[in-house]
Amino acid sequence: MTSLALIEAAAKRLAGHTRRTPLLTSPFLDDLAGRRIVVKPECLQHTGSFKFRGAWSALSAMDEATRKRGVIAFSSGNHAQGIAHAATLHGAPSVIIMPSDAPRLKINNTRALGAEVVLYDRASEDRDEIGERLARERNLTLVKPFDEPLVIAGQGTTGLEIAEQARDMGIEQGDVLVNCGGGGLTAGIALALEGHAPGLRPRPCEPQGFDDTTRSLISGQIERNDKTAGSICDAILTPSPGQKTFPILQRLCGPGIVVTEDEALRAMAQAFLRLKIVLEPGGAVSLAAALYHGDQIDADTVIVVATGGNVDADIFAKALETL
Amino acid sequence: MTSLALIEAAAKRLAGHTRRTPLLTSPFLDDLAGRRIVVKPECLQHTGSFKFRGAWSALSAMDEATRKRGVIAFSSGNHAQGIAHAATLHGAPSVIIMPSDAPRLKINNTRALGAEVVLYDRASEDRDEIGERLARERNLTLVKPFDEPLVIAGQGTTGLEIAEQARDMGIEQGDVLVNCGGGGLTAGIALALEGHAPGLRPRPCEPQGFDDTTRSLISGQIERNDKTAGSICDAILTPSPGQKTFPILQRLCGPGIVVTEDEALRAMAQAFLRLKIVLEPGGAVSLAAALYHGDQIDADTVIVVATGGNVDADIFAKALETL
Repeated sequence: MTSLALIEAAAKRLAGHTRRTPLLTSPFLDDLAGRRIVVKPECLQHTGSFKFRGAWSALSAMDEATRKRGVIAFSSGNHAQGIAHAATLHGAPSVIIMPSDAPRLKINNTRALGAEVVLYDRASEDRDEIGERLARERNLTLVKPFDEPLVIAGQGTTGLEIAEQARDMGIEQGDVLVNCGGGGLTAGIALALEGHAPGLRPRPCEPQGFDDTTRSLISGQIERNDKTAGSICDAILTPSPGQKTFPILQRLCGPGIVVTEDEALRAMAQAFLRLKIVLEPGGAVSLAAALYHGDQIDADTVIVVATGGNVDADIFAKALETL
Repeated sequence: MTSLALIEAAAKRLAGHTRRTPLLTSPFLDDLAGRRIVVKPECLQHTGSFKFRGAWSALSAMDEATRKRGVIAFSSGNHAQGIAHAATLHGAPSVIIMPSDAPRLKINNTRALGAEVVLYDRASEDRDEIGERLARERNLTLVKPFDEPLVIAGQGTTGLEIAEQARDMGIEQGDVLVNCGGGGLTAGIALALEGHAPGLRPRPCEPQGFDDTTRSLISGQIERNDKTAGSICDAILTPSPGQKTFPILQRLCGPGIVVTEDEALRAMAQAFLRLKIVLEPGGAVSLAAALYHGDQIDADTVIVVATGGNVDADIFAKALETL
């Protein structure tokens, strides 16, 4: 069970190892949105996304013997790189199971960060079976991407920083927009804000067609997406919110906001132009919500968690064309 | 005369108004360079470049009556935006003299930040005459872009931050590579490091064909460039180092490093890929020096000051094509 205490304990373990990302602002974004916009750029985190926080939290909490045997994770993206880098820095081996059709760059990066990458064929092989067999044979510990208390606690340290940095800027009230896949980051931030900045309300942001959390919050039960792929917002495509994350989201979050792919690309371009940061589509959904769905926001101030920047050059070039 | 005391006084005035930019690292950049690379991303500063520091320093040091009358500056780029924004935040009017063929985006941005933009025709009008007349008629104070002690002091606060942040990372020795136009930033950083981190040696970095400072350091006297335009590194094209900056550079800097335009573009692409930050060509020259001119560097650790990110989308797209 993730609690504020677990997040605060994670913050102690992360100190000096994760980057305390700043809060960025631009008068041009304020004008565009018609309200004050404050951006927390987790693209500047190690490995280019907030996922490194949860990975470090999980690795650093293990006893030495367990850690030395190694960890295993399923991921084709940001969680993979976070786990690989955190494991290597802990001197622990890591195995990442990735689909053989994952982008070559992501496979190469994950290997370069020190992981053993095991590829499987989506059509003919069972990912879970491969993972379970490897975990059993080598006595590896599985680190799940979001439905794991230590991972949620690590992501929640983002919320502790937001609470403190917002207070320093005189911000006591507002909405905090968070890109939401399985809900690990959103849940962690929600718990941190509940404890340290109760005037700041977390709200999940999702791409059109993958709005499982938004619909789940409306219906009051876990809803699923029809598709599991087919969006440029690949970082936040998850079938449904997690068993552990959803109750936290349900208790603490405001309504979700859903944006189009085109809006995500336009938000990437604004982040380029006004903040000088690189966002991936799934990392720009929250900024798109702030800039283009202001009619769904009442707050005078919006804090946008810009969650990651691992984007290929061709997609980024496409975003720039919207300018 | 700029001194460490003047920089420390500027730091007090800047506190809470300028952004304390973090230090960024990536194992991929370390591999590429063959040594440890630490990047200070001043592109994340307000208005997208370090120039806001010098502008705030100058504005905040004026007496209230002088400030209320307003300031004037000549600039088609980052100094213009820095002065416009700092003046507006101080409630002071600002007049920026820009060539009529300056990029429309920069003219619009400077206006949007609150300045009155006065355009002149490069071919038929005398910039200095227009500026002097306006300054006299309206009793405006000229803020020079680099050869001005208060501006150098403001830029030098970057060096105070580097000294402190490097110490926190355990870095006591190394080269600090700084993009150098007129030398205001380089001189300010040099003085700050002399006082607070004497093991860190500043070195100016320049684009090919505009290596006035590198040549001046070799000859021991102020050398000039043949050209004043014609490079994509527009932010750091200055005819020669300043009368006030050069003696400081001469006393405290190591040898300059000169890079090609293509290297600057490739460094921009690496900053995109590995650090998730947006650099303009003139802001990426120091990173290019670290990545592609390692044969001219002995230090195990290099701190790269990435000075600005105000780049048009088409130039950035060109940089991405180098990947």
